[in-house]
Amino acid sequence: MKVLNNGSVVLLEHMGGDQAVIRNARRCWRSESKSENADRQLLRHLIKAEHKTPFEAMVFTFDVKAPLFVARQWFRHRMGSFNEESLRYCIALRDYYIPEALEGELLEAWKKHNEESFDFYDELVSKHKIPKEQARSVLPIGIYTNFYWTVNGSSLMNFLDLRLDRGAQYEIRVYAQAILELVKEVAPVSFGEFEREVLNISE
Amino acid sequence: MKVLNNGSVVLLEHMGGDQAVIRNARRCWRSESKSENADRQLLRHLIKAEHKTPFEAMVFTFDVKAPLFVARQWFRHRMGSFNEESLRYCIALRDYYIPEALEGELLEAWKKHNEESFDFYDELVSKHKIPKEQARSVLPIGIYTNFYWTVNGSSLMNFLDLRLDRGAQYEIRVYAQAILELVKEVAPVSFGEFEREVLNISE
Amino acid sequence: MKVLNNGSVVLLEHMGGDQAVIRNARRCWRSESKSENADRQLLRHLIKAEHKTPFEAMVFTFDVKAPLFVARQWFRHRMGSFNEESLRYCIALRDYYIPEALEGELLEAWKKHNEESFDFYDELVSKHKIPKEQARSVLPIGIYTNFYWTVNGSSLMNFLDLRLDRGAQYEIRVYAQAILELVKEVAPVSFGEFEREVLNISE
Amino acid sequence: MKVLNNGSVVLLEHMGGDQAVIRNARRCWRSESKSENADRQLLRHLIKAEHKTPFEAMVFTFDVKAPLFVARQWFRHRMGSFNEESLRYCIALRDYYIPEALEGELLEAWKKHNEESFDFYDELVSKHKIPKEQARSVLPIGIYTNFYWTVNGSSLMNFLDLRLDRGAQYEIRVYAQAILELVKEVAPVSFGEFEREVLNISE
Repeated sequence: MKVLNNGSVVLLEHMGGDQAVIRNARRCWRSESKSENADRQLLRHLIKAEHKTPFEAMVFTFDVKAPLFVARQWFRHRMGSFNEESLRYCIALRDYYIPEALEGELLEAWKKHNEESFDFYDELVSKHKIPKEQARSVLPIGIYTNFYWTVNGSSLMNFLDLRLDRGAQYEIRVYAQAILELVKEVAPVSFGEFEREVLNISE
Repeated sequence: MKVLNNGSVVLLEHMGGDQAVIRNARRCWRSESKSENADRQLLRHLIKAEHKTPFEAMVFTFDVKAPLFVARQWFRHRMGSFNEESLRYCIALRDYYIPEALEGELLEAWKKHNEESFDFYDELVSKHKIPKEQARSVLPIGIYTNFYWTVNGSSLMNFLDLRLDRGAQYEIRVYAQAILELVKEVAPVSFGEFEREVLNISE
Repeated sequence: MKVLNNGSVVLLEHMGGDQAVIRNARRCWRSESKSENADRQLLRHLIKAEHKTPFEAMVFTFDVKAPLFVARQWFRHRMGSFNEESLRYCIALRDYYIPEALEGELLEAWKKHNEESFDFYDELVSKHKIPKEQARSVLPIGIYTNFYWTVNGSSLMNFLDLRLDRGAQYEIRVYAQAILELVKEVAPVSFGEFEREVLNISE
Repeated sequence: MKVLNNGSVVLLEHMGGDQAVIRNARRCWRSESKSENADRQLLRHLIKAEHKTPFEAMVFTFDVKAPLFVARQWFRHRMGSFNEESLRYCIALRDYYIPEALEGELLEAWKKHNEESFDFYDELVSKHKIPKEQARSVLPIGIYTNFYWTVNGSSLMNFLDLRLDRGAQYEIRVYAQAILELVKEVAPVSFGEFEREVLNISE
């Protein structure tokens, strides 16, 4: 799923779904599923009452490519696991964020600045043998980075609640939107009710 | 998988395995898998160097039935998710731990005490209409409880390291042993190396 | 601060307070405190918008004595630190919960059951040399336990929100109420606004 | 405490110390402190056996100024709380990392690149009215950022273990070293034993 000028987000793996959440929630009352409708109402109740642990029975791993300043906001969400390519060991690839709105001379100046930054970085590493981990200091914050994100359903809802908010930065909101689409396919009732109960209210 | 006189542990669901850990670890160096042997050495290195995040790409959900005092030790492991049946809402079932070593009169006294405790509990709830959430005060700590546990590979290793230790209580060690057997089938290299590198050293 | 028939909660130590939260929140905007009223409005905004990290600058350590089934609910709050006396190593003291409402024969039966449970426990340990960690199986769930709890302001608010709810069990609600009183003395604006904005709404 | 060319780390507040750890550890056995030497041995034992929760009774808040790529490594430590100034709301200050080893023409080229990056950023914000949150894309990863870090003693030991390792990047190692000096003044036995038992072994 393409995001921004050159980013992406892919749902690599997942465990559980609506049924796992229902199973876990029903353990509390030692109850059994009666109907699809009762299950939907149960999930809605859990979301409204903020009973979050049953949603931790769903887990997702995403493969994300995003600008570094977006990744920084993302990594503030501590309840999840990140594995990111490291510029201590990998050479940075010439790949950077360009806001859609830029055009004309300003777009050219933006590209020129980024290209020159990569030129200087390459020179530092190749010619001056500056370690990659130090040379990255001169790269712009808008370069793309790649990471895997493993997160459970409850933490994901928290992420979506904060990052789909109108106060969130556009560049992370589009990732949150893409992720919501992806997980709604896997757990349509949980994330459908979440969208209705939480996101619409908070807007 | 039967544990103790009346307990059990079942691996209900899992996500990822050795390959997910390897994939996540290799993201750091943007490297690719070369051979089975190289992969095994990578996993061994991660374990020895305590690089734990790649193991968070594996997630497991267990269905556990254990004595309440074992559950109490278990729930101290905060990096994981528990959904337990609640004696606020469910009536307690007449099901309690009996140490194997007990025999003769002592065994009979043990059973009698537990049976009388359940008798008193039943009387409080049925006859005196004491709320279940209060009446449970009189139940013994050795009653069985049921819970789901969702935990990632890294936290699971931490659990196993502490609960397979010779200093750990026998009653939780047998659960830890059962779990190690179950996950070795799903992620044989990760938990095989873990067993070799961590458990054998700590013994 | 006395709670229930024989429990208590004491605020042992704390770090930070309203000023620490304000300082941390203002770091985000590199802004400075202008007036007491502006500070109060900032704290209210943080609470309403669920910007929780600044409240993590406040940390509290409580010394708690509570029935074991209350401690079990308490320990489900994973974002905090517990150190509890262990019945693997300590002999259980004859100290158990008695609901206020009990009277007459029922009160006597309640006491008798608890006393006999302790008698049997003592016999198992002293006469039969059953290890304390096993013998505790026969103790009732209503015995008192002692623990230290270290928790930050944000997790504490989450605890209070859930445990002051009318749906929470009475026996933990009285502890939550006691704790709210204690922290309102230390951070009156934060917990005052929290009470107004969160607790009153959720009631 | 000055770190790198223009960074710093200050211990703003703390709670607890060696005595809090000892108090919390002794709760487990309901034991009392007998001598200074016994206390030191207890702390050593806790560290060697990786009994970490008692160290969570100590909490520290640091005020840190560090290059952004150092902050990124720092923020990977999830068990702690960060409040950082945000370049969505604050204008970036002309302040960037310069490796000590740089000299001559290379030093001049490094400075020129950073100055030109800030020139372009200022132009984007002031002249072209590009939002600060987007304009920061062109700033180098080596700019300094300011944040508060609240962390407990156990998580801090984990941070120090990983970031004082010879495999860690020099630029974060010097911060870890400064922090170790600061906390050794506050909790000399805990961090003294930690240094002896963990750091020396891992070297």
